[in-house]
Amino acid sequence: MLSHERIVKVVSKYNLAELTIGTLGSHSALQILKGARDEGFRTLVVCRSDQTHVYQHFGLADEFVIVDNYKDLLSHEIQEQLLEHNVILIPHGSFVEYIGSENISNKLYVPLFGNRRVLEWESSRDKQRELLEMAGIKMPKKFDTPEEIDRLVMVKFPGAKGGKGYFLAKNKREFEQKLKKVKGEKKYYTIQEYVIGTLIYPHYFYSPILSRTELMSMDIRYESNIDGLTRIPERILKGYLVDPSYVVTGNIPLVARESLLPKIFEMGENVIKVSQKLFPPGMVGPFCLECICTPDLELWAFEISARIVAGTNLYVQGSPYSQLLWNEPMSTGRRIAREIKLALEKNRLLELIY
Amino acid sequence: MLSHERIVKVVSKYNLAELTIGTLGSHSALQILKGARDEGFRTLVVCRSDQTHVYQHFGLADEFVIVDNYKDLLSHEIQEQLLEHNVILIPHGSFVEYIGSENISNKLYVPLFGNRRVLEWESSRDKQRELLEMAGIKMPKKFDTPEEIDRLVMVKFPGAKGGKGYFLAKNKREFEQKLKKVKGEKKYYTIQEYVIGTLIYPHYFYSPILSRTELMSMDIRYESNIDGLTRIPERILKGYLVDPSYVVTGNIPLVARESLLPKIFEMGENVIKVSQKLFPPGMVGPFCLECICTPDLELWAFEISARIVAGTNLYVQGSPYSQLLWNEPMSTGRRIAREIKLALEKNRLLELIY
Amino acid sequence: MLSHERIVKVVSKYNLAELTIGTLGSHSALQILKGARDEGFRTLVVCRSDQTHVYQHFGLADEFVIVDNYKDLLSHEIQEQLLEHNVILIPHGSFVEYIGSENISNKLYVPLFGNRRVLEWESSRDKQRELLEMAGIKMPKKFDTPEEIDRLVMVKFPGAKGGKGYFLAKNKREFEQKLKKVKGEKKYYTIQEYVIGTLIYPHYFYSPILSRTELMSMDIRYESNIDGLTRIPERILKGYLVDPSYVVTGNIPLVARESLLPKIFEMGENVIKVSQKLFPPGMVGPFCLECICTPDLELWAFEISARIVAGTNLYVQGSPYSQLLWNEPMSTGRRIAREIKLALEKNRLLELIY
Repeated sequence: MLSHERIVKVVSKYNLAELTIGTLGSHSALQILKGARDEGFRTLVVCRSDQTHVYQHFGLADEFVIVDNYKDLLSHEIQEQLLEHNVILIPHGSFVEYIGSENISNKLYVPLFGNRRVLEWESSRDKQRELLEMAGIKMPKKFDTPEEIDRLVMVKFPGAKGGKGYFLAKNKREFEQKLKKVKGEKKYYTIQEYVIGTLIYPHYFYSPILSRTELMSMDIRYESNIDGLTRIPERILKGYLVDPSYVVTGNIPLVARESLLPKIFEMGENVIKVSQKLFPPGMVGPFCLECICTPDLELWAFEISARIVAGTNLYVQGSPYSQLLWNEPMSTGRRIAREIKLALEKNRLLELIY
Repeated sequence: MLSHERIVKVVSKYNLAELTIGTLGSHSALQILKGARDEGFRTLVVCRSDQTHVYQHFGLADEFVIVDNYKDLLSHEIQEQLLEHNVILIPHGSFVEYIGSENISNKLYVPLFGNRRVLEWESSRDKQRELLEMAGIKMPKKFDTPEEIDRLVMVKFPGAKGGKGYFLAKNKREFEQKLKKVKGEKKYYTIQEYVIGTLIYPHYFYSPILSRTELMSMDIRYESNIDGLTRIPERILKGYLVDPSYVVTGNIPLVARESLLPKIFEMGENVIKVSQKLFPPGMVGPFCLECICTPDLELWAFEISARIVAGTNLYVQGSPYSQLLWNEPMSTGRRIAREIKLALEKNRLLELIY
Repeated sequence: MLSHERIVKVVSKYNLAELTIGTLGSHSALQILKGARDEGFRTLVVCRSDQTHVYQHFGLADEFVIVDNYKDLLSHEIQEQLLEHNVILIPHGSFVEYIGSENISNKLYVPLFGNRRVLEWESSRDKQRELLEMAGIKMPKKFDTPEEIDRLVMVKFPGAKGGKGYFLAKNKREFEQKLKKVKGEKKYYTIQEYVIGTLIYPHYFYSPILSRTELMSMDIRYESNIDGLTRIPERILKGYLVDPSYVVTGNIPLVARESLLPKIFEMGENVIKVSQKLFPPGMVGPFCLECICTPDLELWAFEISARIVAGTNLYVQGSPYSQLLWNEPMSTGRRIAREIKLALEKNRLLELIY
């Protein structure tokens, strides 16, 4: 992995008065660019040519870097171009998915907002479990082999592909039947107990500058086909077998019962503390605990996203929670830019970028 | 019940220039505190120590009163402390649930926003029905005994426990089977026809100062496990019996078809008129009619909440409806504080507190 | 159809400094009036007396024209009254439904925002299909006769009645059984493949003045009884047959996965281009493509609304998308008024009204 020293050296050549916030054109880029501009930064977006139009339309990027393929970001040429613009890159879900966490760790020497070391923890379900269990967070049971399945489970595949290929099973037989139907790579999977309850995904922000974990907002994912399939009475579907799928297509806003907030804060704060032990200086900036809330008001986390999640796109104008804290329209994208601004004022930028 | 005279006497000793808006730390307290601060009031929150962190984090309370148990609010010591701070307490769902409506009526001499007499009407399903039927509002049929059940019904238990223990049944046999499984107190229940349609919960505010019923916002409750359970195709659940439950875990925003608004206003206004006859001066401030909208666009109310509901937490920045009326970010919490402010300006505070 | 010349002649007598934005009191009228007022226009609403209260309550109309029946709008007397107020009428879904597209085309000589010729395209499902297919948009298969039904289909009836009478069928037999139960006119129907996925309804705005298609916002429709019916486990419904229905009762906010935006823009822009060829000058102002997103992230449009849709009522304070573009609270209602204002400044009003 690239050392912090390497990044520090890069930044030492930056003109901090001309700092540019950049990201890849997908996932939550519009929000990130808007937030950066609201905080007075220059902005840059790395796009494929088929996506340029959207980012041009909204007029939020000062600079465009057009690539044929997102992985071109790793090329010397593009990286040098970003350094010339004094860019800090903001990683997001598609960023990690398209570039690859190993590539980001080892080959991307443009400064990244957040701790690069979190990527290896986020990209492995086993490491995620280690982190969350150390933080005292309830997790759905994991089954090591199909033989052990003794309840309803969700079978998941690696990466942040937005739920593609996931399926439900109740026993080994169902597992095997459905695994056969999965297209593409299916050697690596996780078998996780399917806890039944409401989906509540709190979006957090850990601020090294203010030394606190903030609750930014929450969302419910809107998944295809499942959220359409369940609108067809089963009786009408009879003889018309459609397997449920869980591909994220959008997000719906939500607030949680206020009495859940102490637990939601505790979970976020514990994750930060554990991350600081496991991979100092720990997680920095936005993260999300994908939770299920059972009828006895217990929260179970089945995943962690250690960077901005797309559910925050709902709150370009701020959320009910960020409004309580900031009393101004504070999206997660803007919060990132604000953190960088605060750090610059205190000459502490190097604590945010790795 | 404590007389209005008693409350008037308490307030006569208040320093109105230092009026403090207070509430219990739960339910919609963050919104209430934010609204009070936005209107320039001092704020106070009564918390259990395990909840203090959340209320400190958001920085919206000027004063904290820490209790071991919410019922300690009734103690002479705590009440006197509140009087010293010139507190008007804002009741909410958890407030009533934790303190008890009889205790509030008889033992809490701190001034309360709203008509204390409404509590006895709200806490009894029979009285709720009397009020709503007098207001000409359609209600789902009530069955006095399990023997009478001749359609799909919801069986409910007393109090604002957020749907805990509620169950569905289609006949006496199902009723009895499911009642057996209910934990805790189950002697008192209501058997109510389950009307099928969309859930639309309009949030109202009756202003004695402006003599009008305002539509503040609307929400859909997000309930566990039902809103997770219905995302599992029944075919997959086969042999895996999970009973639905209806515990409120959050809220989702909503606007209603505009052609429903005349009816929604009429319902709210009629409830206010009837309340003024039944328990003068009637309901004051926020209330909610929990409604179902059938495909023929009829609205059925199956409950009334005669105080702020948690669904308003979605609208800390105002709602589409409050924006239309106020043209500034007006949450229900802020609306309460605005009403108090308007009353102070007109020397009519005593019409709001009981 | 009334010629543009006729409308031009009407407007030539208008006092443009006193231009009034008017609409019918239903659907999205509150938003339209609010937007007009925010842009500094006078406002007028045509209401039935039973709806006056709502529009008076919000205080957004400078003038009220009370009618017994919406069709009275076509009377000479009412139309002349509108001309005296220099009114531009904003059509919406209920406007078209109540007045009738032929009446609007031929008898309403008050200037309308948008191209009147779009009405004949919107009111015919066959013409809608022609338009969308020419724009290269995927549409669910259409079945000409019940005999051809070989998959799950939705059967729809004409007009924007908000989904009334719609039903699902898998074959001819089911089609016939269910058609029998439909009340009212059922001679004209469309049999459309039911594509399973999430419902995503992007709201667009085509600006002739700025020559661009904007993405204003998105919503999910909240339909009765289906969105209540699916919250009852089928197992519990056994022996209690309730047919699903699809009457729109409200709207829920949504953002789409950002990687869908290039496709969403392309679809909207292609529709505009095709409309300009088919019925010059093409569509003007707000429109919506009612889409389904499948798990392979393909968007299928099953309908087009060629005017403001009620889902935009969610965004009186602006949406995440309109905030990105405008950086001020820009609802679709306000966007219409802004377009008129921009046109007035450039002396191009006649390009917006037909």
